[in-house]
Amino acid sequence: MAVADLYTKINLQYSSKLSYVSTRLSYSRRVSLRPLPQPHNSRICCSVTSKEAQAPVFVNTEDPKKKPDCYGVFCLTYDLTAEEETKTWKKLINIAVSGAAGMISNHLLFKLASGEVFGPDQPIALKLLGSERSLQALEGVAMELEDSLFPLLREVSIGIDSYEVFQDADWALLIGAKPRGPGMERADLLDINGQIFAEQGKALNAVASQNVKVIVVGNPCNTNALICLKNAPNIPAKNFHALTRLDENRAKCQLALKAGVFYDKVSNVTIWGNHSTTQVPDFLNAKINGIPVKEVIKDTKWLEEEFTEMVQKRGGVLIKKWGRSSAASTSVSIVDAIRSLVTPTPEGDWFSSGVYTAGNPYGIEEGIVFSMPCRSKGDGDYELVKDVIFDDFLRSRIKKTEAELLAEKRCVAHLTGEGIAVCDLPGDTMLPGEM
Amino acid sequence: MAVADLYTKINLQYSSKLSYVSTRLSYSRRVSLRPLPQPHNSRICCSVTSKEAQAPVFVNTEDPKKKPDCYGVFCLTYDLTAEEETKTWKKLINIAVSGAAGMISNHLLFKLASGEVFGPDQPIALKLLGSERSLQALEGVAMELEDSLFPLLREVSIGIDSYEVFQDADWALLIGAKPRGPGMERADLLDINGQIFAEQGKALNAVASQNVKVIVVGNPCNTNALICLKNAPNIPAKNFHALTRLDENRAKCQLALKAGVFYDKVSNVTIWGNHSTTQVPDFLNAKINGIPVKEVIKDTKWLEEEFTEMVQKRGGVLIKKWGRSSAASTSVSIVDAIRSLVTPTPEGDWFSSGVYTAGNPYGIEEGIVFSMPCRSKGDGDYELVKDVIFDDFLRSRIKKTEAELLAEKRCVAHLTGEGIAVCDLPGDTMLPGEM
Repeated sequence: MAVADLYTKINLQYSSKLSYVSTRLSYSRRVSLRPLPQPHNSRICCSVTSKEAQAPVFVNTEDPKKKPDCYGVFCLTYDLTAEEETKTWKKLINIAVSGAAGMISNHLLFKLASGEVFGPDQPIALKLLGSERSLQALEGVAMELEDSLFPLLREVSIGIDSYEVFQDADWALLIGAKPRGPGMERADLLDINGQIFAEQGKALNAVASQNVKVIVVGNPCNTNALICLKNAPNIPAKNFHALTRLDENRAKCQLALKAGVFYDKVSNVTIWGNHSTTQVPDFLNAKINGIPVKEVIKDTKWLEEEFTEMVQKRGGVLIKKWGRSSAASTSVSIVDAIRSLVTPTPEGDWFSSGVYTAGNPYGIEEGIVFSMPCRSKGDGDYELVKDVIFDDFLRSRIKKTEAELLAEKRCVAHLTGEGIAVCDLPGDTMLPGEM
Repeated sequence: MAVADLYTKINLQYSSKLSYVSTRLSYSRRVSLRPLPQPHNSRICCSVTSKEAQAPVFVNTEDPKKKPDCYGVFCLTYDLTAEEETKTWKKLINIAVSGAAGMISNHLLFKLASGEVFGPDQPIALKLLGSERSLQALEGVAMELEDSLFPLLREVSIGIDSYEVFQDADWALLIGAKPRGPGMERADLLDINGQIFAEQGKALNAVASQNVKVIVVGNPCNTNALICLKNAPNIPAKNFHALTRLDENRAKCQLALKAGVFYDKVSNVTIWGNHSTTQVPDFLNAKINGIPVKEVIKDTKWLEEEFTEMVQKRGGVLIKKWGRSSAASTSVSIVDAIRSLVTPTPEGDWFSSGVYTAGNPYGIEEGIVFSMPCRSKGDGDYELVKDVIFDDFLRSRIKKTEAELLAEKRCVAHLTGEGIAVCDLPGDTMLPGEM
């Protein structure tokens, strides 16, 4: 049969489905009725080689698990191994993103889809989690992803139920969080966001890949990550990260500026502790051109007083100048955080990530999510760096951020299954200008 | 001398400059007094190898040309050939971007800086043009670029005078344009934006690289590009492009959806003519899996009536869903447009760009900027594709968009040096949802 005839047949046979695909009017929102069995999804499946086209056919997937709604051209699924151009590609990975209609995601999703994060032979599926309110915007995001024609982006689905969207996720990038409303106390914020992350932890536990890597960006991200991992007992606690990479990047830039060198000469910068104003950008272990920072920058007053403040206040300064929070550089730092886990860490260097403290060699209290220096072999996993030094100044500041995280932990005990919450938080330490 | 001592010396010697760099408080805005000679810029110059650090030194550049203000860490300039990691890199290129504080740029600049456009061995300088009103926001953008630590991004400067910002530009991406205000006629819009692009054309002519490649994104982009090139007689007219790549990408996606194939199977799609509702997405020459579209999609009514409308209305639909215009996919299409000029076009395929019609083989009136099918050897240049076919339907629609562009040209004759403007524009054909 000539290929042209084949296409005619396709058009006749699947005209109703195709008109759905092209008009998008029949998009149906699934409400989250978790325990109900779903009708089997009918999906168009298409296997195409460069020489010959094959008909898309409906496939009864026979998969009782629920899936979020696929979008437009991404409802086509392919046997990538059947195509000349794609048969050497890796196996498709599923990347779930919450807060997918927000500004950070609007930068991040296009970076993920372009291949700059996972590489040019890694096809990806994006699973976008939004809210009832943002569902229209999510469709807009999916449309823009369609119009971008990224070859590696093979599936996009959107939904508002984390149990559907997190299905088989290999990565979960948890960006969505409620920003603080007027008059809201930090304890309220911890509680309201904590509930979101408890729910998402449960969903990940139930439906994600059991080795899913989770990066929590929504603030307060350390304690949100703690809540999330406590609600996902089947997923290794080691797989959860709270994003402190933007702080690390900002610290590197400030050290570079002070030393009058380009930022690529700054290495071994650790952010210790909480992603808050108690965070500790470590200039004791940091290096410039391989030389300890304290030997390069002799201005101790600047290092001990101004440096940390400049890192912390960066977000606030930016909001004043730019009028919105730093979505672009935040998304770059998420890319950096992922890349640090999927590519080997350069010899002698490390990166910061908020990770679970169980078994840490630094004497930090166990059972919290604390930013510490990590190295990776590029397999998605990490190990804590052993050869770091401490002095009294560094130790005392680490104690302070540790105390804050322990207080936050007590404040969300009702969400981590550790009893009744007691909120004795010290003063408000949200980073200025960050959601 | 030990490297550490060297750094101490640097810190003492250049403390005033460095404190400027780190506080950014002394940022001084230069007003556009074009003919006045500038005091020689003192710039920090730093050459660093991985083994040994060299002192930044002030260099009197002895260059009477004015430069826009460098920003923060990007005020350091390097001898890249002196560094182990960078000595195999290509020569730094200057990329000027107008409307740099806007949303399209906020996506685009980070793509340029990451290396995904020009490649991993191409260091770049970004020269950001804003307005008096957006200067603070521009600083915010520069700060976020600093915080992103892109190794290839070696210089960032910001300014509000195109004669400064376009200095030595190898690429000029002209995104900034005035959106239409309430009650503004299309003729008013052509005039107000035309004046901006006449000025920018003059500036490019005076100070940019004489082989600068110019991509006009600000609408109405075809006629803006025409005005720009007419005001830059020393730059080859062939170097000016009006962006119709987003239209091409959208057309490919709609054809893919209709045929039930993935978008990477669609090739040879031309957008003919104006980036307006008279644009002609060409399904006569387009192919799916190498087969003419008309043999694959037999629904002629859809091709002739719905297809073009779907491509045109996409921006408007998106605005309704997403609440803003399509900044992310527009910036992706700008990346595509640049890449199409700096990488060889795949065998047998082509891309669309709005280019000057002088010497075109299609019988299109000379002296306008018209989107046509192009191929490139990857040297930044292009040639028009010869083997395209026409039928009466395609020809008649090309005539219509040609008539519109000729009317627009008459309407801006006062800006192209071709006499007195006569505005007899047909009905309003701005694309819905686009600025």
